[in-house]
Amino acid sequence: MIVVPLGTSSAAPTLTRHLSATAFVNQGYILLFDCGEGTQLRLQQCRLKHSRIEAIFITHLHGDHYFGLMGLLSSMALARRTARLVIVAPEALSRLVHLLPGIREEELPFPVEYVPLREGMAKAVVYDRPDLYVEARAVDHRVFSVGYRVQEKPRPPRIDAARARMLGVTDYTDFVALKRGQAVQGSHAQMVTPEEVLIPGSAPRAFAYVVDTRPCEGAVQLARNATLLMHEATFSEALRKRAHDTAHSTARQAAMVAKRAGARRLLLCHFSSRYRELDTLVAEARAVFEPAEAAEELRSYPLEPYADES
Amino acid sequence: MIVVPLGTSSAAPTLTRHLSATAFVNQGYILLFDCGEGTQLRLQQCRLKHSRIEAIFITHLHGDHYFGLMGLLSSMALARRTARLVIVAPEALSRLVHLLPGIREEELPFPVEYVPLREGMAKAVVYDRPDLYVEARAVDHRVFSVGYRVQEKPRPPRIDAARARMLGVTDYTDFVALKRGQAVQGSHAQMVTPEEVLIPGSAPRAFAYVVDTRPCEGAVQLARNATLLMHEATFSEALRKRAHDTAHSTARQAAMVAKRAGARRLLLCHFSSRYRELDTLVAEARAVFEPAEAAEELRSYPLEPYADES
Repeated sequence: MIVVPLGTSSAAPTLTRHLSATAFVNQGYILLFDCGEGTQLRLQQCRLKHSRIEAIFITHLHGDHYFGLMGLLSSMALARRTARLVIVAPEALSRLVHLLPGIREEELPFPVEYVPLREGMAKAVVYDRPDLYVEARAVDHRVFSVGYRVQEKPRPPRIDAARARMLGVTDYTDFVALKRGQAVQGSHAQMVTPEEVLIPGSAPRAFAYVVDTRPCEGAVQLARNATLLMHEATFSEALRKRAHDTAHSTARQAAMVAKRAGARRLLLCHFSSRYRELDTLVAEARAVFEPAEAAEELRSYPLEPYADES
Repeated sequence: MIVVPLGTSSAAPTLTRHLSATAFVNQGYILLFDCGEGTQLRLQQCRLKHSRIEAIFITHLHGDHYFGLMGLLSSMALARRTARLVIVAPEALSRLVHLLPGIREEELPFPVEYVPLREGMAKAVVYDRPDLYVEARAVDHRVFSVGYRVQEKPRPPRIDAARARMLGVTDYTDFVALKRGQAVQGSHAQMVTPEEVLIPGSAPRAFAYVVDTRPCEGAVQLARNATLLMHEATFSEALRKRAHDTAHSTARQAAMVAKRAGARRLLLCHFSSRYRELDTLVAEARAVFEPAEAAEELRSYPLEPYADES
């Protein structure tokens, strides 16, 4: 599980930062969070194939978070995609996108399944696959906006095969029985119990993606014990009032969310174009929550299992 | 007058070529031709301010030619533009663009004036300013599509001041009279005629922008005696049938249009992503029309006055 920020600029692109989009990459598939203009190009630039995108999650309907969707759908059509694409987004999106010539629904060679988010929602599981699910929660922005949490499902325990053999268990059916929680006969007629040979699966990982919001309870809930929290930090503390008035967060506020939530690591993103250098924002965040840094575009951030859990 | 290609890729962007857009830059203003996804970023990258854009001309409603418009309008709004923006485009565009949250017409702080192009049109002057006008003509694509010609207006003759003084004309009112075509009294009571002192203005320049079309009479008319013709060259001759079937042109066909039209210089553009190198396309064009080359993105191409006219 790897997170790759594709764009970390708020509102408008700059010469060094692009519009909002982040790829969550796992074996064989990609979940895309937001899709600002130019996202398809950013994917190319880090060699992520858009054919691997299984679902797209849009936080809200401000252009800098979804104007890249049209071009991406267009290129998927051009590449003759046939696989279903899931789009989770505020409900107005599905009506709007397909009005555009070139990507009308009947023109696309692949099915698009919309998961509409309705204003007033508190939280919902919006996507589910065997290895993880994605939860959406309302956050606090000028328009209806949500954050997302990718939650890995508990992984089954596995058998310490060397130890099992040492205790005289070698047969496949005995291994299956142990995994089911049944004791089996080992060497010397001794019974071997699951507790003796099972190693618990690693603790489930979680990635929270929270942009375009004031610091809020929804953000804290999304980030609770997250392996990695990506949180917007549009402004520095000097512009705290402006952050509040425009319904954004400061870097320090992002750090306080991370701290309250017990997140393990914080990636700041969604920077105002007024900041050429991000040192001040990072310093303000670290004063509150040490494992904070500015998201670097196109860099891979692996989701490591919790170091202190097993 | 300078032309700056911002994107020369057809359909989808590549790692080296971007989606269709070309800036026509003159003193103090920009006319933008097509606006594929990422155009606002390409403008930034060659230090062209979007605030200087006076009018945008869209050739047709395939996404790779207009999906950048939404983000550009968005950024113009964010920069608090107040100046009117003219958008010349197939008529459906105005209905569509402003349906999108964030760029609804009432949300924009500047007026947008649409010049709608209707299917079935042959040609029309679609934009007029003191120094030039822009003509649109239908071309031959899978959907209604036009090409554009920027036509400089004749520049008034100017007075060869040194020669006028030599003939004894120094007074401002005499200069004005000469420009009006009246003879005036010079030194030694001799009359000085306009013919003796007027230098004709340089020949008017013209830039033709023709993309997404089979070679056609409309293209030839747009390019007649043009200083610079930018013409699509999606395919090489080896894919001539494919070019015809998809309603595009080969590089050689673009060159034949340039030749028939008596254009001075040809810039090929709108290249299929299958061509990493463009040598073959350029060679095929040059075999027919020598002053042909592949448009390089972000390079400035000055519109020089005709060398052989004065």
